[in-house]
Amino acid sequence: MDFASAIRRIEAARPRHRLDIGDPDVPPPPELVEALGRVGDLHYGPPEGLPEFREAVASAFGVEPGEVVAVAGGRHGLAALMWIFRKKRLITPSPFYPGYFDIAGVFGISLEVVESGDGWVPSFSERGIYIVNYPNNPTGSVLPRGKVRELVDAAEFVISDEIYRDIIFGEFTSPLELSPNVAVVYSFSKVFSAPGLRIGAVVAPREVAREVARFNKATINVPPTHVQRAVVSVIDVLPRRRREVSEIYRRRAELAAKTLRLPFVKPAGAFYIFPRANAGCFEKALQAGVSVLPGELYGRPGHVRIALVEPEDALEEAFEVLNRACG
Amino acid sequence: MDFASAIRRIEAARPRHRLDIGDPDVPPPPELVEALGRVGDLHYGPPEGLPEFREAVASAFGVEPGEVVAVAGGRHGLAALMWIFRKKRLITPSPFYPGYFDIAGVFGISLEVVESGDGWVPSFSERGIYIVNYPNNPTGSVLPRGKVRELVDAAEFVISDEIYRDIIFGEFTSPLELSPNVAVVYSFSKVFSAPGLRIGAVVAPREVAREVARFNKATINVPPTHVQRAVVSVIDVLPRRRREVSEIYRRRAELAAKTLRLPFVKPAGAFYIFPRANAGCFEKALQAGVSVLPGELYGRPGHVRIALVEPEDALEEAFEVLNRACG
Repeated sequence: MDFASAIRRIEAARPRHRLDIGDPDVPPPPELVEALGRVGDLHYGPPEGLPEFREAVASAFGVEPGEVVAVAGGRHGLAALMWIFRKKRLITPSPFYPGYFDIAGVFGISLEVVESGDGWVPSFSERGIYIVNYPNNPTGSVLPRGKVRELVDAAEFVISDEIYRDIIFGEFTSPLELSPNVAVVYSFSKVFSAPGLRIGAVVAPREVAREVARFNKATINVPPTHVQRAVVSVIDVLPRRRREVSEIYRRRAELAAKTLRLPFVKPAGAFYIFPRANAGCFEKALQAGVSVLPGELYGRPGHVRIALVEPEDALEEAFEVLNRACG
Repeated sequence: MDFASAIRRIEAARPRHRLDIGDPDVPPPPELVEALGRVGDLHYGPPEGLPEFREAVASAFGVEPGEVVAVAGGRHGLAALMWIFRKKRLITPSPFYPGYFDIAGVFGISLEVVESGDGWVPSFSERGIYIVNYPNNPTGSVLPRGKVRELVDAAEFVISDEIYRDIIFGEFTSPLELSPNVAVVYSFSKVFSAPGLRIGAVVAPREVAREVARFNKATINVPPTHVQRAVVSVIDVLPRRRREVSEIYRRRAELAAKTLRLPFVKPAGAFYIFPRANAGCFEKALQAGVSVLPGELYGRPGHVRIALVEPEDALEEAFEVLNRACG
């Protein structure tokens, strides 16, 4: 089953609990909604993003504005970087985010998969361009610092998909802290619960940043300027919001550990769990009123991905259904 | 000189009159600003666009919703279609919109140029996939219906860049009226004076529309949903707005014909004129306080592109400067 078929099947079934797509239920920060509502300038901006946007993100990441490019959401940054490195050996650990294969499929890019071991920790021994995603979708795992070191030592370059970097339950080390050969893909979608906005950034060495800006110009001309302005005006909200949403999703993951009888590796960030489940789980859970996504979409049959995007009382009810349908 | 260098040169010179980029000065419709200000749902949507967006655009074009895909601005639709047809023989008339070459350059796509004759009317005799742009940027020309017939008869398929289709001073025939082998690229940027929003649509046969949706998923995942909703809620404004902006730009073009002594073909739509000018015109005009763009960017040295994006009194002053600097 592919992603589109799974979604069609879910939409037809109209389940009581939708734990499939990673679309946050936590309301966006009111400051963001207000900022978006103050519609001013709708003119063009530069392909690399507005200077004030690049400065705000650079300051949040401790880099220079010339190392930041605005993009129309995380997917757009990933597409740019996969395109830029398309002629190299691209490698991603399994379980993987299926979006990488949407990009690879359309652009005819080869993408190798390396398996993760216990606790969803891969070995990084092959030389190549790694695409990694920590905190991870679908498992919620985070690499310990020693593993990040192993990654940057093995990699020719790292595309670090960090769209969940603001949702962490303990420590998080970005490969960017340990190596200059890293491009971070960042998005405001998850931390601000606003995936419909399509706004993110790539943080990368200047020469890579310039290539991302060229990709912008060829694909969308300029990232949406009014959204960049709104984000800049609420960038100060980010630390508070990061704490708030991390706490909300951490509690939900704890609840899952307590209530759900399907075995899973405890997540260290993001808002997913990826338990083992019997083969019919997707369909049986759906018929019992809970949508999840089949592990095969993430390269791991025999699992399901559960997005923790309902309040705790609703999740508890959904977990009970899953215990009966999938155990 | 390439586009980026020209813009850097212009920004450094801080001219009194900026007639370079096609960024409308006419304010956006207040209804659109209000609609954008009513920020509601910021959730994901489908890659092909929200059903209500597809229905609204389909109704405006007299097609089926399955033939409409939302895109993040006209450039995004063009990139999708050029990518889809990349293995075919792609042809565009000169003068051309340089954005086509931004796309071709990044994606390694070959794009042939056929010269236009008197009145900027090309001959369509070669077989291939044509990328055409009428009303035209940079000339403002529009093809007579007989020429559109010649185009669709010669073409294997037509990518019809109609982002200025709402700004017309007389008749306009879309190739879509004469052939099913046409994809229209439409944008709300120019008619609504809102190029920073990045919202447009591709209207195409279903099998092409599906490929555009796949390109969406690989490049931006989903077109911005809050902007789609805002546009849907003001789609009824479109006929009135079309009349208003067409009248404003028609009067400016008339003023140019009366005041400017550089010779040009009278435009039939859009908001540009493309007069012949001496070789130093770009630099001399800039030093005298008026920015235009060099014709070489559009494949035609010996010309300049003038964007009619100031009110009439300001334009009149700018034309006098151009008469002295470039005549």
